[in-house]
Amino acid sequence: MEWVYIEDIGKYVGKEVEIRGWVYNKRSSGRIRFLLVRDGTGIIQSTAYSKEKDNPIFRAFDELTLESSVIVRGMVKEENRAPGGYELELSEIIPVQIAEDYPITPKEHGVGFLMAHRHLWLRSSKQVAIMKIRHEIIRAIRDFLDIEKKFTLIDAPILTPAACEGTTTLFETDYFGDKAYLSQSGQLYMEAAAMAHGKVYCFGPTFRAEKSKTRRHLMEFWMVEPEIAYYKLDDVIALAEEMIEFIVMRVLERRRKELERLERDINSLEKVKRPFVKISYDEAIELLKKEGFNMEWGDEIGGDEETVLSKKFEKPVIVHRFPALQKAFYMEPDPERPELSLSFDMLAPEGYGEIIGGSERISDYDLLLKRIRENKLPEDAFKWYLDLRKYGSVPHSGFGLGIERTVAWITGVKHVRETIPFPRLLYKIYP
Amino acid sequence: MEWVYIEDIGKYVGKEVEIRGWVYNKRSSGRIRFLLVRDGTGIIQSTAYSKEKDNPIFRAFDELTLESSVIVRGMVKEENRAPGGYELELSEIIPVQIAEDYPITPKEHGVGFLMAHRHLWLRSSKQVAIMKIRHEIIRAIRDFLDIEKKFTLIDAPILTPAACEGTTTLFETDYFGDKAYLSQSGQLYMEAAAMAHGKVYCFGPTFRAEKSKTRRHLMEFWMVEPEIAYYKLDDVIALAEEMIEFIVMRVLERRRKELERLERDINSLEKVKRPFVKISYDEAIELLKKEGFNMEWGDEIGGDEETVLSKKFEKPVIVHRFPALQKAFYMEPDPERPELSLSFDMLAPEGYGEIIGGSERISDYDLLLKRIRENKLPEDAFKWYLDLRKYGSVPHSGFGLGIERTVAWITGVKHVRETIPFPRLLYKIYP
Repeated sequence: MEWVYIEDIGKYVGKEVEIRGWVYNKRSSGRIRFLLVRDGTGIIQSTAYSKEKDNPIFRAFDELTLESSVIVRGMVKEENRAPGGYELELSEIIPVQIAEDYPITPKEHGVGFLMAHRHLWLRSSKQVAIMKIRHEIIRAIRDFLDIEKKFTLIDAPILTPAACEGTTTLFETDYFGDKAYLSQSGQLYMEAAAMAHGKVYCFGPTFRAEKSKTRRHLMEFWMVEPEIAYYKLDDVIALAEEMIEFIVMRVLERRRKELERLERDINSLEKVKRPFVKISYDEAIELLKKEGFNMEWGDEIGGDEETVLSKKFEKPVIVHRFPALQKAFYMEPDPERPELSLSFDMLAPEGYGEIIGGSERISDYDLLLKRIRENKLPEDAFKWYLDLRKYGSVPHSGFGLGIERTVAWITGVKHVRETIPFPRLLYKIYP
Repeated sequence: MEWVYIEDIGKYVGKEVEIRGWVYNKRSSGRIRFLLVRDGTGIIQSTAYSKEKDNPIFRAFDELTLESSVIVRGMVKEENRAPGGYELELSEIIPVQIAEDYPITPKEHGVGFLMAHRHLWLRSSKQVAIMKIRHEIIRAIRDFLDIEKKFTLIDAPILTPAACEGTTTLFETDYFGDKAYLSQSGQLYMEAAAMAHGKVYCFGPTFRAEKSKTRRHLMEFWMVEPEIAYYKLDDVIALAEEMIEFIVMRVLERRRKELERLERDINSLEKVKRPFVKISYDEAIELLKKEGFNMEWGDEIGGDEETVLSKKFEKPVIVHRFPALQKAFYMEPDPERPELSLSFDMLAPEGYGEIIGGSERISDYDLLLKRIRENKLPEDAFKWYLDLRKYGSVPHSGFGLGIERTVAWITGVKHVRETIPFPRLLYKIYP
């Protein structure tokens, strides 16, 4: 008998098939037994009817517990009342392994307990839906860059010799007698690659050893970082807008079932259409003052301020041209107001806050060298980075998109810890 | 004037366009100037003709050096004699930045020099071709798993508390007072995820702090690891075969130009069709003995032996059922001969050696616990892993494919250091 996956069951109506999975739920109603089986691609209701209580199917049914592994065989029928629209008329139940006292029950569990059982919690239907959407978002990003925009993927190294943004929040390791650090960003490497391939991106894990415990922070998170030669600030902002619209539309198109399972407000996602809201840092400060924040020009726009800004608008908000002193050494100054950097952040709406940070990069050798010295960075370690300004320097720009924050926003999950399969949190590295 | 990329130039025949790139080469022939411009998507020949030596285009042309950044404008023409089949009839040359003494010249350089200039070496046409093929291979793997086989991507963590295969070759870091290690494999996490999603894979960087300096070793390399619930050894071998055939056919279809630039023997790639060669470990030992190796049953099949085996056949070779003692603790024993594990390696042909290692995993709780104890592994750290055998355990199998070795084989490059953008080698972590 053919082993099929539940997601394909519609092709087998009227046929005998085998499903291999786990017990999601079961119940009896008089002479009928209902067994809900999940196989990772869906859930199917399988039913058995008998006048006699003592028969092999009922005996196997009775043995099964929540999350026991099981193989079921039967005829596929259309059944509007069943979840998914199909039902399996059972001809055989083969228990594989009986789970005893599965720790996650339908009752409420604390997050600490669930996190300690992350390896099992991943099976819960809400967690399955989040991971399917995470996958769809990653796939959408790659399709957008690979196919729509013809970028070249250039994997950035994780083990790096020098710090991009200070060493206090870096994980350090010994590299055969030298110190090495886990990368916080592949950007500098992408700048080199953009001079070779024009349009490039990296997509990998990045690390921040930050002692913070907020709903937006992970020690290990995934980031996609496009970098484009000959792009100016406005070009890269336009690219970021197009990419975000593409991702959201793709999820709406292909993962509506999962969004509904998560009770996500679809309507607010449907509003994520270009153009997004664009305000300068100057305007953002004025706006925040009106909202009652005690701020002045030059202050950082922190998490609380981001939440307020991103709740004010229905679409993502792009804040551009931050004070140069707030931003990284490599950012191109605004030629009209050199105290500003040609930088931008994109804030997701509904209070989710920053998902993207980007900028135009300094292309002048002397200015970059001056900035490296002002920031007391090790010049030797940046020699190769300076080379990029010596040998065919061009204006170029890029940005980084944080995957987990994007997943949190699109799925409507409040804390990033549920948006990555095995989150790395402060003091928490198990399982 | 519209800025276009060279790869799209065929759409603009008869039109004036702008190309932004770098000087790949230039030469003069009487009253004609030839400027070869690359922009990361291709190379185009642009030409200027004039009776007068002193004209703005010639003056700009004279200024340009190898790898200077430049914007050129002109009319697109079909021209069979030009590389790529099109030519730009120059109307304007705008130098952007003049490169002085570009360090990589057409003369031969040593690998040490090139590696120290990896940030510039990436621009060379051979390196560009390798990276385009690397990208194609990664894209093919994801298309195969995402679309053909409907797997769910589940990113494995990089920071892990426990060692999967011993701690001597692990990079260690401090995790807020605890020890953490950089992952050598996402497999154990994929086993948990397979119980939630059925068919899963992770795809990310992995690390090995091994003091080895061979053409097949990197400290940091990328790996894709599919894991499938209810799959037995034969199922997962069939999956690996199908995936490798899919990848090779995709590269042949879409990256023939790059293969030709690398002077790759296309013919031998075209032979990579299923079924591949399958031999047991027992047979492999007999074969190696005949080849003159002084070996006996139980010996490891090392790099030299792999080279010989993989040169003997035109197709990839699958060696299966290795002695259990040689392999990891989690591998299912062969029920017919418990001294063997239900494991396999796939060797690429033409002497490239191992690209895949995989197995069926132990599904019985008691046996797994016994193996963990025999291997003196920290039982506490593996509690969650044991849980997978307590709550709905199923037979399951998976494998890991090393990206860089696969790229080396398909591109025909001898050393893996050229198959990753920024290789991490023994004592070498710059740039």
